[in-house]
Amino acid sequence: MTTPTFASLAEFRAIISNLTAPEESAANAARDRNNQLTKPPAALGRLEELAIWYAGWNGSARPEIVNPQIIIFAGNHGVTARGVSAFPSEVTVQMVANFKAGGAAINQLARTFGARIDVHAMDLERPTADFTQGPAMEEVEFVDALRTGWNAVDPATDLLVTGEMGIGNTTSASAIAAALFDGQPSDWIGRGTGVSDEALALKIRVVEGGLERNPDREPLAILQNLGGRELAAMVGAIARARAERIPVILDGFISTAAAATLACAQPGALDHCVAGHVSAEAAHGEMLARLGLNPLLDLGMRLGEGSGAALAIGVLKGAIACHSGMATFAEAGVSDS
Amino acid sequence: MTTPTFASLAEFRAIISNLTAPEESAANAARDRNNQLTKPPAALGRLEELAIWYAGWNGSARPEIVNPQIIIFAGNHGVTARGVSAFPSEVTVQMVANFKAGGAAINQLARTFGARIDVHAMDLERPTADFTQGPAMEEVEFVDALRTGWNAVDPATDLLVTGEMGIGNTTSASAIAAALFDGQPSDWIGRGTGVSDEALALKIRVVEGGLERNPDREPLAILQNLGGRELAAMVGAIARARAERIPVILDGFISTAAAATLACAQPGALDHCVAGHVSAEAAHGEMLARLGLNPLLDLGMRLGEGSGAALAIGVLKGAIACHSGMATFAEAGVSDS
Repeated sequence: MTTPTFASLAEFRAIISNLTAPEESAANAARDRNNQLTKPPAALGRLEELAIWYAGWNGSARPEIVNPQIIIFAGNHGVTARGVSAFPSEVTVQMVANFKAGGAAINQLARTFGARIDVHAMDLERPTADFTQGPAMEEVEFVDALRTGWNAVDPATDLLVTGEMGIGNTTSASAIAAALFDGQPSDWIGRGTGVSDEALALKIRVVEGGLERNPDREPLAILQNLGGRELAAMVGAIARARAERIPVILDGFISTAAAATLACAQPGALDHCVAGHVSAEAAHGEMLARLGLNPLLDLGMRLGEGSGAALAIGVLKGAIACHSGMATFAEAGVSDS
Repeated sequence: MTTPTFASLAEFRAIISNLTAPEESAANAARDRNNQLTKPPAALGRLEELAIWYAGWNGSARPEIVNPQIIIFAGNHGVTARGVSAFPSEVTVQMVANFKAGGAAINQLARTFGARIDVHAMDLERPTADFTQGPAMEEVEFVDALRTGWNAVDPATDLLVTGEMGIGNTTSASAIAAALFDGQPSDWIGRGTGVSDEALALKIRVVEGGLERNPDREPLAILQNLGGRELAAMVGAIARARAERIPVILDGFISTAAAATLACAQPGALDHCVAGHVSAEAAHGEMLARLGLNPLLDLGMRLGEGSGAALAIGVLKGAIACHSGMATFAEAGVSDS
């Protein structure tokens, strides 16, 4: 099969309207195998569900995870001009250098769990527009960013983590959540990274301004108007993973906000995704609940970079190792009742 | 330093009354290092606390985990004669063979996270006494079991997981919890492994009978009278790890019940331990709360074998990798405000 690509937003919409499905025969064979393993029924809890889910998307009843890929997309946000972040925008490019030099948290987690990292710095010298003044991106920029994400996925990978870096992007993620879901903007706004009480109030006003200035509530329009290049690229990558039937671990608040636009645009579009963790960002848990995603980890992390999802690679590797490596009752000569 | 051993229960009590402390200088240096790493303050959440805790016990401000040890102790329980388990006692010896052949869940998790496994089958052909009829163990057997655990720990390991296998041992663990803590026996009794409604009611009566027949509420007496060899061995191993300043990851309900006797016998005796997970066994969360332990994982597991703790090795390895491998703001040239 040749994976299609897209030259326009209409073509991207056409791709995502035609979702792949997991291989039911592989999932069923994995379910049968799970019932024969040397453990009481359901004793591995969520690890069993994870293994069966992974088997379906991987297309193998007894899969292995050998080639996970972490992709970090970095973008700068015009809305930082409103003073919503405690860190200057220069930190985005500095952190990209840190990722490339191997000095960030995500590099250590990737090494620990045997994942490769690819970093895409997306026009950092040219931030997206301030969404309180108009759409963050023009359609052509938005499609470029989606396509960067789409093309960044290695079709040979067997597990994808999408991460991000972008000073100001919690504000963008909060605006997206407020536009997608009901409630007040303040319900979807947390402190982000090192934000004071005053800055929190400012963040609420900025999000309210962005929502007012960008009234279109179609999910991909929300992503274009209130998002950023790195958020759009994550959506492109998640869509590509779906086309290739590659399971995805979602990261935190920003990663989930991006993914939420895809889920709202096309119900079921995140069936190949699991939530790696629930972050310390106040509204992340609620956003996951709206999407029907149950996080694997809850460790108070709020770093981004794909770090929570990368830590969850360990959980998924453990689940698959048990599923594919354990002896059956018959093989081990263990009584099953 | 020569680590002392013990020939009697009195000598074991003397050892645990003289607890080692973490190296404050290493923990303080780790805390300083943590504050300089290229991330916003506290953005790695619990991973940061874990790294500082581990650094203190490991005695290094920038530690590595290179040699984790998983020890599985297996024992048989006379109380199974009361019909409290859905599985026959023969499964204990069958599963020991499975551990040795590499076919159990714990083997796959150990391989995934680079841990060695040692298995100690403890007089499986000679179950402990039925605690509804008298003490499960005589003092000499109990001390032998504590010493088996003590001697099983490799002093060169840098992380210990204690696991167990023993048909009937959830009943033993429930009896221990009910004896140590307040409330009704039924508050501490779950379904164990594949137990029906009737069997649950039976389990409650059996625990009540055991508590009545063994009225001594001194914590180590509770372990001797209501425990089993594998539970006592876990306590011996946890005590040895403390003497050697080796951090420990506790597993589920049974592992925690054993550890609870040590904590009640000597306050602070679990300061070198972290709870790997909260299991699906109903009372485990409450037991952890009584001990002030906050579990790392909550994945509905209920297998024993040390499996939940082994999965948490991945979390701890991730925490230590970030702590010890990340660049500082100065090293990476990243603005820290």
